This record gives sequence, structure tokens and C-alpha cells, in this order.
Amino acid sequence: MPFDASSSSISPLMIFGLKSALIHPHDDIFNILCDSLNTAGLNFEDGDVLVVAESALATAENRVVSLDSVRLGAVAEKYAGLTGLDAREIELILQESDVVYGGVHGVLLTLRDGLLCPNAGIDNSNAPDGSVILYPEDPSKSAQQIVKSIFQKFGKQVGVIVADSRTQPLRLGCTGVAIGAAGFDAVTDKRGEKDLFGKPLHITRIAVADILASAAEAVMGECGECVPFALVRNSFAVMNPEAIGVETIPADDCMYLGILKNK
Amino acid sequence: MPFDASSSSISPLMIFGLKSALIHPHDDIFNILCDSLNTAGLNFEDGDVLVVAESALATAENRVVSLDSVRLGAVAEKYAGLTGLDAREIELILQESDVVYGGVHGVLLTLRDGLLCPNAGIDNSNAPDGSVILYPEDPSKSAQQIVKSIFQKFGKQVGVIVADSRTQPLRLGCTGVAIGAAGFDAVTDKRGEKDLFGKPLHITRIAVADILASAAEAVMGECGECVPFALVRNSFAVMNPEAIGVETIPADDCMYLGILKNK
Repeated sequence: MPFDASSSSISPLMIFGLKSALIHPHDDIFNILCDSLNTAGLNFEDGDVLVVAESALATAENRVVSLDSVRLGAVAEKYAGLTGLDAREIELILQESDVVYGGVHGVLLTLRDGLLCPNAGIDNSNAPDGSVILYPEDPSKSAQQIVKSIFQKFGKQVGVIVADSRTQPLRLGCTGVAIGAAGFDAVTDKRGEKDLFGKPLHITRIAVADILASAAEAVMGECGECVPFALVRNSFAVMNPEAIGVETIPADDCMYLGILKNK
Repeated sequence: MPFDASSSSISPLMIFGLKSALIHPHDDIFNILCDSLNTAGLNFEDGDVLVVAESALATAENRVVSLDSVRLGAVAEKYAGLTGLDAREIELILQESDVVYGGVHGVLLTLRDGLLCPNAGIDNSNAPDGSVILYPEDPSKSAQQIVKSIFQKFGKQVGVIVADSRTQPLRLGCTGVAIGAAGFDAVTDKRGEKDLFGKPLHITRIAVADILASAAEAVMGECGECVPFALVRNSFAVMNPEAIGVETIPADDCMYLGILKNK
């Protein structure tokens, strides 16, 4: 039964999952997006935020690598023993990351362009057998290109997020995280605003891009559903055509790394 | 302009922010919820998930503590120097936490009933001057009580999340996290399902409660908005009247703590 919005005095935030056919290397991600939107009977509106699954974008950008093509370097074997991962995958992880913090079974914790990510974002789920998918080369730049393409074709100012799934400290299961963003303010700064009692706020920044990346997981799934896009409508995201990038902080300013890596 | 859902072939996930008046100690949170729902012109449907801000619940549960009432123990001063926090607040943090991992400016990283949380969840935002708000005593038990009250009054099976905001490792800004849950499966287990290429999935669990807690932040805000509830409709949350609690993992199994605290 369709929901009758007119019975409520408030406009809900809405998230539409947009299906596509299987995406192949060298596909045009924007064309696929337009087809998905059309199939769903939707159009863009100003202020919408589009969430794109990083694996879909990376596949279209031909970031699929056959493990047989990987030449092993000197240190890959060491981490393979620690993690139990294929040494060829380790080699790619080392090539793709700036810092390796260490490993446990199944994962190396790495830093890539300021993003903390397991295995440098390399995934062998949703990749052909014997292959892995690297992160998109520059997710925020790709997001910005989609922002521009949407504006050119639809005349609407839309924000774009490139999203991945991520576990959180001491939690079972994955939420979403924005690994790239453009066209809106990825973090809302509420410094200067007041709390319920008129005192200055202590928690002052909302990670809008990460919140919407997580929300999108609720319609995209992480399996074989072929839902590479989610369209978020009516969020408080602030459009900003010049904005590009997600906001990271240095390890020393981080509640987790600042405390744990110095113990 | 209201959205005309009939133009699309898909039913979106929807999130409604529900406003209330200022909540006071000893208020009945369920009565406030019913008033908020009524004001918004909404009713519960089977499968809805209600997100409750932990500060609203904690205030109604009279978890507000005046700092003047706190008697300092032996170690509070030590952490006060490290963090710059009021020693009386530190004392409460020590009383409320099971483990203190360490501190940086403004925060002690603590474990409370398996939940990793800054300052044992104690917050002086949205508290009267000179007071702080502790976490609800048992957030999942409170969530379960709301599940039962909703079923009794409305005859609908609804999931309930008690949500807080939380920074993520190396990220600027807060997302949402479930500190309590009941009435639905907090984590969806997809082990055994296949990826796009028919291979077994590697990432197999979705932290549904955390995803929806984050999504709710997009309508609740963290400031003086007085939006203590969010109603999530059309998510893939699986109702389970017996389910209670969020799912945490031990430090050794965690990608972050397992690696960083052993360095």
C-alpha cells in the first residue's frame, strides 16, 4: 500500500534504491545511472544526493585486476602469513596504500589518501573469479564529474557520494562510509549554535556524507542485488557546487588512533 | 511541493523526524512519543523502526547528575590533567565505565557494557547548566519496553533503537550509533549468500541498527532542534519480537583495536 504523504504534516527524508544490469569494465557510469533513474520513473531534484557504490564505479573505471598479472615484491609474503590473504592481493594492497598499520586475520588496516580502510579498499567480492577490484582512482573527482554531468543533462544541483561499507570499532557488521564526495558540504559545521539550554554545543560537526552513505546501505545491500545507486531526497545536505572531497583528520587528533596507537 | 510517490515504481525508505517539547526528568517517554506521533499526523505500521535519541531517553529516566553532588575519587585528577575535563565529570566517567583505554584532549575512550564510547557516554550538551547526562541505565531494556508499549497501544510490531552520535576513526564529524535496540535483528547475517558473480560473500553482516541510527541523524540533528524521535519506514529491518541488544565484538577480533592496541 503506497504511503499517503498528505496525511502527515512533515516531509520525510526519502531514499530510493536504483537497480541496474551488471556493470562491466569501460561502461559509462553516467549512462547506467540515467537508465536506472528512468527505469525507476524518477527525476533529479535540486538538493538530492546520489550515492554510488564504489565497487560499481571502480568496475566501470576498469579498476579490476587479475591476480595472475601481479608480480610479487619483497614484503608481500610477510603480510600474507599474518593475514592469511593471497600474497598477490597483499602486493596490490601495498601498492595502493600509503601506510600499513598492521594486520589481523583477513585484513590489513591501511591508510590511502587519508582514508582509513581495510586492505586499501581492495575487494574480491563482486569481482570475476581470480580478480579483485581496486578503489576508484580518485573517488571525489569521479563524484564531481557525475555532479557536472547531472547538471548538464538535468539542470539540477545534486550532491554525489561514492560509498563503501565499513566495520566500526568493536561493532559487528558494516555501516556505510563516504570515500568520495562532491557538490555538497560533506561535513556540517554547527560551531556557534546552542544546545537545548542555550549553551554552546560540544559536538559540533555532523558527517553528512557518512550519514547518507550509511543510510543508503539500507536500500543498496552489499550482495548480489545490483543496486549500485541510491537517491536521497529531503536531507539537510547543503548543496555547494564547488565542494569536493570528504573530511578526514590526522591520527593524533583522532579519539581512536590518537589513544590506541600511542599505548 | 509534496513528492508524488505514484510516479515511481519503487517505494522509498522514508524517515520522519518527530518533534517534541523539552523533555524533563521523570517524564514518560512513551507518552511524549505518542504526542509527537499525533502532532505529526502519523501512525505506526508493522515493520517500522523507531529511533530514540539517547539524551532524550536518559533525561526522562532522570539520569541527569549535578556536578556539585559528585565526590572525587583518587584517580580523577590524573585524567583531568590529560583531558582538560572537569574532574567531577571524570569521576562520573570512571564510575560509569568498565575499561578506560586512555585519553586525548576533551575525551576519555571507554568501554561500557561492551560499547566503545567517549566519556562513558556522559554528555554535558543538552543538560542544564552545571549538570551532565549519563547514558540510560540499560538502553536495550528501555528499547524493549517501548516495543512492548507500542504493541499494546497500536497493535503494531515495531523495532526500537536508542541512538547516540559518534565520530569514526580518522573522520571529521559524527555519524549515528545504536547503543540499544529491541524488536528487530540489529545485525543482518548474509553468510551463505552469493555476490554478483555467484561467489560466497566476504562481507556478510550489515549493522542494520547502526545504519538506521546514522540515517536518523539526518532528520534529528544534534543541537537544540527538539527532534528526539525518528520513524523509519520501508527499511529491510527484520522484525523479531524476542530480539534485544546491539552486537559488539571483543577487542581482539576488531580490525581497529586488535591491530592498534597491540602495537
